Amino acid sequence: MSRFLSRRFASLAPYTPGEQPQGMEYVKLNTNESPYPPAPGVIAALSAAEVSRLNLYSDPQTKALTNAIAKRYGLFPAQVLPGNGSDEILVFCFEAFCGEDAGACFADLTYGFYEVYARLFCLETKVIALSERFTIEPEAYFNAGKTVFIANPNAPTGVFLALGELEEILKHNRENVVVIDEAYVDFGGESAVSLLARYENLLVVQTFSKSRNLAGARLGFAMGSEQLIGDLMKMKFSFNPYNINRLSILAGAAAMEDGAYFEACTKKIMQTREAVAVSLEERGFFVLPSRANFVFAAPKRIGGEAYYKKLKEKGVLVRWFDRDRIRDFVRITIGSDAQMKTLLNATDQILEETK
Amino acid sequence: MSRFLSRRFASLAPYTPGEQPQGMEYVKLNTNESPYPPAPGVIAALSAAEVSRLNLYSDPQTKALTNAIAKRYGLFPAQVLPGNGSDEILVFCFEAFCGEDAGACFADLTYGFYEVYARLFCLETKVIALSERFTIEPEAYFNAGKTVFIANPNAPTGVFLALGELEEILKHNRENVVVIDEAYVDFGGESAVSLLARYENLLVVQTFSKSRNLAGARLGFAMGSEQLIGDLMKMKFSFNPYNINRLSILAGAAAMEDGAYFEACTKKIMQTREAVAVSLEERGFFVLPSRANFVFAAPKRIGGEAYYKKLKEKGVLVRWFDRDRIRDFVRITIGSDAQMKTLLNATDQILEETK
Repeated sequence: MSRFLSRRFASLAPYTPGEQPQGMEYVKLNTNESPYPPAPGVIAALSAAEVSRLNLYSDPQTKALTNAIAKRYGLFPAQVLPGNGSDEILVFCFEAFCGEDAGACFADLTYGFYEVYARLFCLETKVIALSERFTIEPEAYFNAGKTVFIANPNAPTGVFLALGELEEILKHNRENVVVIDEAYVDFGGESAVSLLARYENLLVVQTFSKSRNLAGARLGFAMGSEQLIGDLMKMKFSFNPYNINRLSILAGAAAMEDGAYFEACTKKIMQTREAVAVSLEERGFFVLPSRANFVFAAPKRIGGEAYYKKLKEKGVLVRWFDRDRIRDFVRITIGSDAQMKTLLNATDQILEETK
Repeated sequence: MSRFLSRRFASLAPYTPGEQPQGMEYVKLNTNESPYPPAPGVIAALSAAEVSRLNLYSDPQTKALTNAIAKRYGLFPAQVLPGNGSDEILVFCFEAFCGEDAGACFADLTYGFYEVYARLFCLETKVIALSERFTIEPEAYFNAGKTVFIANPNAPTGVFLALGELEEILKHNRENVVVIDEAYVDFGGESAVSLLARYENLLVVQTFSKSRNLAGARLGFAMGSEQLIGDLMKMKFSFNPYNINRLSILAGAAAMEDGAYFEACTKKIMQTREAVAVSLEERGFFVLPSRANFVFAAPKRIGGEAYYKKLKEKGVLVRWFDRDRIRDFVRITIGSDAQMKTLLNATDQILEETK
């Protein structure tokens, strides 16, 4: 830390991303990437001719991408704002809607960035504990008096809140924005985008990193009323008007247009997930019901930390959180069938070694 | 604007980027892009094989890119932080160093984003007028008591402040960070990077958008002491750890490694600039001395706005600023020789028509 840094950041704890070993040969099941490559249209779209045009700025309006998203979800383009990953979209939401006395409200166990952003912007927070079964209790969010952030399905649990219950939260927060972060919704959840027409306080955030196989392109997007999206656009044009590069705009549009490939990949991952959940339960794990591209599972005897470390020794990376209530668990990304077989084999060895 | 937007943003005026017409056939001399494609190594680096790995996250440490920049400038990797365009780096600087009572100090005529960021973060500002010759007077910046932002060469004027004078500003601001924004330094300026070893309050910001032919990849970077870079890194990991996509990391590293292509492109642009400046002067323009990839020129009789509009009618886009002191001028990007010939032909027609 330099002596010039603002004092309020002295104790700021940034977000810790999952390990991203570069070059080492791990089976990476720790950051919820898709095991499958981007849609074939993406590879076609990012031609040498397009690369040779990188001397020109990208479209600050990101029209090709915005239009593809709007078409897919039956919205007007003015209801959609893409960002440099959904994290950037979340920054814009915190900046635009949580200022002055609004503050932020979120669960005690959820996407770690909500807490980081709340600290970054020095916000008052209302942190609501998940139930003992790791579910969101809608009533606890009624009249929150703050901007509400709900990851649905939740991370790192994978637990999904039914749309009817979410709607109750929207109804009882007419004076606040409610941001539904649907990073994992395409793996068996149901999007709140169908509620947009009825709730002017609803913002839906999605990403291309999981179900669209484009984590490395850094693309997320917000969907909401023209007014809310206009507010976020004001943030974008005040932060970084050229926030998305030329190639990611093309990649995102091509990925969004290939519905069949999207269906095939997400369906396959859900099938693999169900098989893995059964396999882990057969081995004595407690597995939360997941609608995401990961499972949150507790190896009953070994403990989460030891299991994570032993898997790493055997070349399999999963995510363990050193945090109250969830130290017994690890979060395991659903990879290819071959990757999951490696995980299960390593697990069998660990169970044998620790008998 | 929605009723949910924080009140402090109600009157926020975002930055207005130069027009980016998509698909229309303009000669675009309005956003200071390079007329030349990226280095050949960039096209080789962004192979179909790399595109097919976009399902995986990018390296949050951006090692390949950071190392290439550090090597080029003779720094340690810990003294370099790449960002999603230099605008993102500037956001991190404003956030990290201008908080509490620090505030920001910059020229009245300079890169428009300094003012936008100052408003975004509700900062106290000290705005210092350029001289009548559009130069920076170093003494005016002594003991600024605020974080100082200086574009050098300045935008939109192209005027360069000699390193010796810059050093005086550094010496007389030991208690503030001084950010030197060198977006245009490679076109005949001299980088302050050579002063880093002696001034712990110095941060140098550069971009790949102009001299590295990669505006569409969105890449900028900061160079400074390990402590200052550590502060900015804290901002990055609190905002958006995966801020740069996989392909831009590769593109930036390849561009930085090809010194010969960089030299050839920047030299050619400087030659074209000198020829264009002479040609405009021959036509009665007042042209500021430029060390950038643009010229700031006043068509004496017609006026800046009319000249800009008439050029646009003829298919040539330049940038005109509706702002006190510079309404007589337009900013003309230095493109290829063919593009500049088109500009001069259009200018001749306009001069003829408005006789």
